[in-house]
Amino acid sequence: MVDKGLLIVISGPSGAGKGTLCKALLNKRCDLSISVSMTTRSPRAGEVEGRNYFFVDKDKFESMIEKNGFLEYACVYDNYYGTPREYVENLVNSGKDVILEIDIQGALKVKEVYPEGVFIFILPPSMEELKNRIKKRGSETEESLILRFKSAYKELNYVSKYNYVVINDTVDNSVEKLHSIIIAEKCRVDRYKDSILNSKEGLLHEQFYD
Amino acid sequence: MVDKGLLIVISGPSGAGKGTLCKALLNKRCDLSISVSMTTRSPRAGEVEGRNYFFVDKDKFESMIEKNGFLEYACVYDNYYGTPREYVENLVNSGKDVILEIDIQGALKVKEVYPEGVFIFILPPSMEELKNRIKKRGSETEESLILRFKSAYKELNYVSKYNYVVINDTVDNSVEKLHSIIIAEKCRVDRYKDSILNSKEGLLHEQFYD
Repeated sequence: MVDKGLLIVISGPSGAGKGTLCKALLNKRCDLSISVSMTTRSPRAGEVEGRNYFFVDKDKFESMIEKNGFLEYACVYDNYYGTPREYVENLVNSGKDVILEIDIQGALKVKEVYPEGVFIFILPPSMEELKNRIKKRGSETEESLILRFKSAYKELNYVSKYNYVVINDTVDNSVEKLHSIIIAEKCRVDRYKDSILNSKEGLLHEQFYD
Repeated sequence: MVDKGLLIVISGPSGAGKGTLCKALLNKRCDLSISVSMTTRSPRAGEVEGRNYFFVDKDKFESMIEKNGFLEYACVYDNYYGTPREYVENLVNSGKDVILEIDIQGALKVKEVYPEGVFIFILPPSMEELKNRIKKRGSETEESLILRFKSAYKELNYVSKYNYVVINDTVDNSVEKLHSIIIAEKCRVDRYKDSILNSKEGLLHEQFYD
């Protein structure tokens, strides 16, 4: 029997840098899979089906909602976005570790249905830095900037729902921490107790002494 | 305020290789401290006070027992061995991460008085390999070999009392796992929730927007 893989949920406020960290982590660890979301919005130029998103129509999405087919989903500006349950579970059951990059509201929903996931909260090194990062994205009015920042600040309270927090000071430091968390989780006794005890039982049949 | 360091308890059956791993880990991570035991036995040639052991007489040891001065202690062949509580607590309180290499009985006692420690069980890759390692040490009669092996085997049941298990296949792999466990533990929300929330409170006084 293959040990199940981990679902590693990488989350945090907008501007904390979770997208950059996920890309860098996947570069370092090509054994990891990334969870691909499903959406009803139209593909943009250059977006590839099954890599950026699974693109489906509204009927298909809603019928999947009814069949409990999502770990979480949300409706944003009249378009659905969701994490397909079967897609993730198939990967995890085949022993793959899956990265799911997601906002805080989504992560909290995933935790309800998949509490055995590894929930990692990415924090900016300071609120000053968070402000700079949100600013740098441009394309924001001053008003929406304040709104975004205040909402990011409020969301910090959810850190206590997570297993780990990584303060994103530099990409290299943070990726090392994410990498270490994955290795450490695979050594956790409460996660793999059954397989440890099974292998111990297997050892019972070994010759003690010859 | 300095974040407290970790007490990292590295334990497992005799022959699992915990001594070799601790040495290799301390070579890789010179920021770690090692817990030095106290004993009433006489120093052997080359042993240095405060590095190999703290050497004390029986009266001193027993008065420390009375003052609850040990995280654990045991009497072996008429000599006391113990882990001095104040020595370890001073290091941890100053922010140092402390490695304590100890047998399983000792680790279980430490866990009772210091449950916030990180308890890591070192397993040999197989019982066959454990047998070979115990054999290699030589200086064992066949009888004592069987006894040692059977006791090591029985002790495997205690793995469920630990936080982590590291299967010692190669020194390099195992040291990477130990190193990762230490990094990951420092990211755990339940360990550092207070200091995360404190730093968040501190951020309240930052300018939101200028």
